[in-house]
Amino acid sequence: MTYTAPLADMRFALREVAGLQQISALPGYEHATDDTVDAVLEEAAKLAGNGLAPLNRDGDKVGAKLENGVVRTAPGFAGIYKEFVGGGWNSLPFDPEFGGQGMPWLLAATVQEMWQAANMGFGLVLLLNQGAIDAIHHHGSADQKSTFLPRMISGEWTGTMNLTEPQAGSDLAQLKSRAVKNGDHYLVTGQKIFITYGEHDMAENIVHLVLARTPDAPAGVRGISLFIVPKFLVGADGQPGKRNDLRCVSLEHKLGIHASPTCVMSFGDDGGAVGYLVGEEGRGLSYMFTMMNNARLSVGIQGLAIAERAYQQAAAFAKQRVQSKDDGSEQPQPVSIVHHADVRRMLMTMRAQIEAMRALGYYTAAGIDGALKHPDRGAARKIQDRVDLLIPIVKAWFTDLGNEIASTGVQIHGGMGFIEETGAAQHLRDARILPIYEGTNGIQARDLVGRKVAKDGGETMLALVADMRATAGEMKAAPGDDLAAIRTALQAAADALEDATKWVAQSVKADLVAALAGSVPFLRLAGTALGGWLLAKSALAAQGKLAARDGDPAFLEAKLITARFYAEVILPPALAQLGPLKAAGRTVFALPEAQL
Amino acid sequence: MTYTAPLADMRFALREVAGLQQISALPGYEHATDDTVDAVLEEAAKLAGNGLAPLNRDGDKVGAKLENGVVRTAPGFAGIYKEFVGGGWNSLPFDPEFGGQGMPWLLAATVQEMWQAANMGFGLVLLLNQGAIDAIHHHGSADQKSTFLPRMISGEWTGTMNLTEPQAGSDLAQLKSRAVKNGDHYLVTGQKIFITYGEHDMAENIVHLVLARTPDAPAGVRGISLFIVPKFLVGADGQPGKRNDLRCVSLEHKLGIHASPTCVMSFGDDGGAVGYLVGEEGRGLSYMFTMMNNARLSVGIQGLAIAERAYQQAAAFAKQRVQSKDDGSEQPQPVSIVHHADVRRMLMTMRAQIEAMRALGYYTAAGIDGALKHPDRGAARKIQDRVDLLIPIVKAWFTDLGNEIASTGVQIHGGMGFIEETGAAQHLRDARILPIYEGTNGIQARDLVGRKVAKDGGETMLALVADMRATAGEMKAAPGDDLAAIRTALQAAADALEDATKWVAQSVKADLVAALAGSVPFLRLAGTALGGWLLAKSALAAQGKLAARDGDPAFLEAKLITARFYAEVILPPALAQLGPLKAAGRTVFALPEAQL
Repeated sequence: MTYTAPLADMRFALREVAGLQQISALPGYEHATDDTVDAVLEEAAKLAGNGLAPLNRDGDKVGAKLENGVVRTAPGFAGIYKEFVGGGWNSLPFDPEFGGQGMPWLLAATVQEMWQAANMGFGLVLLLNQGAIDAIHHHGSADQKSTFLPRMISGEWTGTMNLTEPQAGSDLAQLKSRAVKNGDHYLVTGQKIFITYGEHDMAENIVHLVLARTPDAPAGVRGISLFIVPKFLVGADGQPGKRNDLRCVSLEHKLGIHASPTCVMSFGDDGGAVGYLVGEEGRGLSYMFTMMNNARLSVGIQGLAIAERAYQQAAAFAKQRVQSKDDGSEQPQPVSIVHHADVRRMLMTMRAQIEAMRALGYYTAAGIDGALKHPDRGAARKIQDRVDLLIPIVKAWFTDLGNEIASTGVQIHGGMGFIEETGAAQHLRDARILPIYEGTNGIQARDLVGRKVAKDGGETMLALVADMRATAGEMKAAPGDDLAAIRTALQAAADALEDATKWVAQSVKADLVAALAGSVPFLRLAGTALGGWLLAKSALAAQGKLAARDGDPAFLEAKLITARFYAEVILPPALAQLGPLKAAGRTVFALPEAQL
Repeated sequence: MTYTAPLADMRFALREVAGLQQISALPGYEHATDDTVDAVLEEAAKLAGNGLAPLNRDGDKVGAKLENGVVRTAPGFAGIYKEFVGGGWNSLPFDPEFGGQGMPWLLAATVQEMWQAANMGFGLVLLLNQGAIDAIHHHGSADQKSTFLPRMISGEWTGTMNLTEPQAGSDLAQLKSRAVKNGDHYLVTGQKIFITYGEHDMAENIVHLVLARTPDAPAGVRGISLFIVPKFLVGADGQPGKRNDLRCVSLEHKLGIHASPTCVMSFGDDGGAVGYLVGEEGRGLSYMFTMMNNARLSVGIQGLAIAERAYQQAAAFAKQRVQSKDDGSEQPQPVSIVHHADVRRMLMTMRAQIEAMRALGYYTAAGIDGALKHPDRGAARKIQDRVDLLIPIVKAWFTDLGNEIASTGVQIHGGMGFIEETGAAQHLRDARILPIYEGTNGIQARDLVGRKVAKDGGETMLALVADMRATAGEMKAAPGDDLAAIRTALQAAADALEDATKWVAQSVKADLVAALAGSVPFLRLAGTALGGWLLAKSALAAQGKLAARDGDPAFLEAKLITARFYAEVILPPALAQLGPLKAAGRTVFALPEAQL
């Protein structure tokens, strides 16, 4: 039930796959030296393992409670949050102008993996705050920035996202909350649901970002504006003052992430909550899109994180639980179940997919940095396109895998996995929200197919395919069975992804419904293939270091074997989504609704 | 949140796939006429839909409670259980000599699907009782049968299975409970865990079947004997009398099936619980194996049932939840989400897999009847071999799908799926036990590969492959695109299953560990392929009835389309397990334990 940040794996992915050295060389990231990065990782690992992880079980069992309009977070949460603020952990990737440390998003994503693995219910307050900071940073006025950003970046105040209403979930065009101009501010009224950390006791103030309509706004998404609606209005002294007209009216009773208060928020019951327009009227939704890449990357990282947590727990259990004899031995004594082939297969499946996710997640985070800081703006634009393409894959593929891996973690525990005290079931319950929030995975696949692939006819994806082939080319000269098997699989992956991409790019124009019917299998194919590519790169790097006698041979050998397992066991069924993604459109709508 | 038994689908599977007519023609089943079967199905559907289903939510929320050694079941459970006993529902498939109705297991399995879909937490008491009846019926003395069977078959008393101990889960060889001879009975002592309905308030008596060791018994499984240990000793008048020395000391706090009390049972705290030896000493485990086919079929049916329940709820939600415009239309108005391609894909996936499971489940149940009643004992033996082969596939494949489908049900609900009040999450939590109990799915795959395929070198499976090819042959002359596409897929499925079976049959001798490493992907391939075969048969039957204008054309068309969706979308990734199942053995043990 504990968590130890897998520092060696993280460092390997940072350096050998995501190109930390190149990122640190970008103008503005010079201070992200190897030593600094290592120090940050080690301190974060301590806080995650010793501070956050032990609170995870109570976070689930006790959860957050609403009492007289006040939300009390789980035991220990307010205390550890103070340590976060004190340690400056919130500020890692943000603008130094407002008190941030200006570190690469790549490093922030790595550290994020630790927080989310250690305690996802707690970690959510950090994610929401990060999104709110992003939105204000990009679109707020100078005054709004100076009022809110320093306190949010330090973490003294936290941010929220108020989007969903009962009738407006994936379809924000339907939202009804209203904002009426009243002098230098607006009066906001309406009810919002599913508001993560909409109320809590860990920070002095809560800065709500609220989507609402102005009175004469057009229907649909162009009528939506974005407002800053703080829990306490900020006085001239910069301190929280008068209580604003908003409150948490209830908490949802959820399957998981019990520690994270999911609030029904009511704005303006007493006449209207004071809100400040961000940017221009009618552009609220487009402002939200600005921060979507970071937010969706973070949710993807949550999928990776919960998978790592579940894996660690299952591996520890498998090494300790003794049951039945070893099939590979004549000895009749029962052995720990890690000696049984199917248990090993489950552990290897978890492990290989986790490493593939970590490689692709960090690679994508490095892309965010490259797009921000690359001195050649043309190159930066290309990197941005690649990030835009990868984001829905990272969000959806990682979170689907997070669920599958958490479920496998339960399975390895046998009967004990179904007992809540064991803790394996909590990971499964917590993981289940990930494919739903921040855009369901169906919405991600729609974004991938209907926007990202459609907008350039598949060009950005085909450039990735070309990179896959280049890696396969580099592997040609490399020695050993493992790399040969990985290379064969990589070529098959490149072929399948190319074929699928061309089909999607064409179909999205010719038959949108058919393209959308195949969008989820396409995303699965793409994620698994790209993960395989980066594991192949990782195997190639490990092989090079082995040859150079640079590093722990057992660790490097494990990278080769894990990549081979992925290539031979994980890839084939995912590549076989090629047929289904093309075929689904033929039958999905063939049954009349009454037959469903 | 309601449940309506899918009678039309059930009847179709019974008649067109499982061969109800042939079963009713077997000697001993003459009374299972079409009219009788229909009447049973309709009455069962009413009790499931109106009686059991409405109690499912409270069963989860309130659950079973232990108070002063007494277990109080959830609101309404004791009342509805009386209706079960009154209606004679427990007695359906059992021997008329002891008050049973002697109906086919095929009908019992169909009705079982209803109970488990309506309320799995309740349904478990029926399953456990069924297993205990089976064991006593096959191995008990005449006296034991006359004392216990009539009351258990009526349901006035219920049975349990006391196998697991903390150190003895999958590996029963490790069990330590003891039984010492004491005149005409034994005194049983020991602690058992995970005892389903080990204590409850719905029946007058509880008949525990307990595995324990006699003092001089050899170590391992040959030292294990089976005992009847009733909660109340039965007096000379046949009535429950003196309380036996056993009790429920605690209930587990579980992820799901909260309505089903999972007991820690303590036997003999005051000197020893009175137990009666079943059959001979040392044969307890082999007696347990006798009833395993029925028990594992039932758990498979639970997987099917929870999938059907989740599907019904998701389909109803998708038809009613309005969100976003229709991609296939120019109209800007939002529509119900059932109009969105990916939601349809999810519903079709659920539906196609449910129909494949139902077909294979009923087919297997019909095999149990054939093996019992076929007048040609040679033919009966062949049928029994086929059943023995199918059982682990039914148990593991259905229960894995039950989880996947329940999870998809949550996904279709979006954010509402994560809120417990919606009820979708309960199905996922309830389903999660199914791949674990009654032999984990890893154990099922091991049984399939290491016993069932190994014992005849794959002959029984290859006979199934020959039947698949015969069906493909019959389809040759059938008209239409749908059947042509299904036939192509069926041939690919036969090829893959043949190849895989031959590999497994050979490897299990040459390299057991490699065969076991591939056992779970093999089982998945086999289940999906065999399900596809029976859906092809189902499509062929539907086509025939359409041509003959026999039946509702929309319903029959839906059978064709669903089978085609399965053939084109569900089958390919499962058949692509062929490479992985052969390859897994190469790498699963390549990492030293310290690297895990």
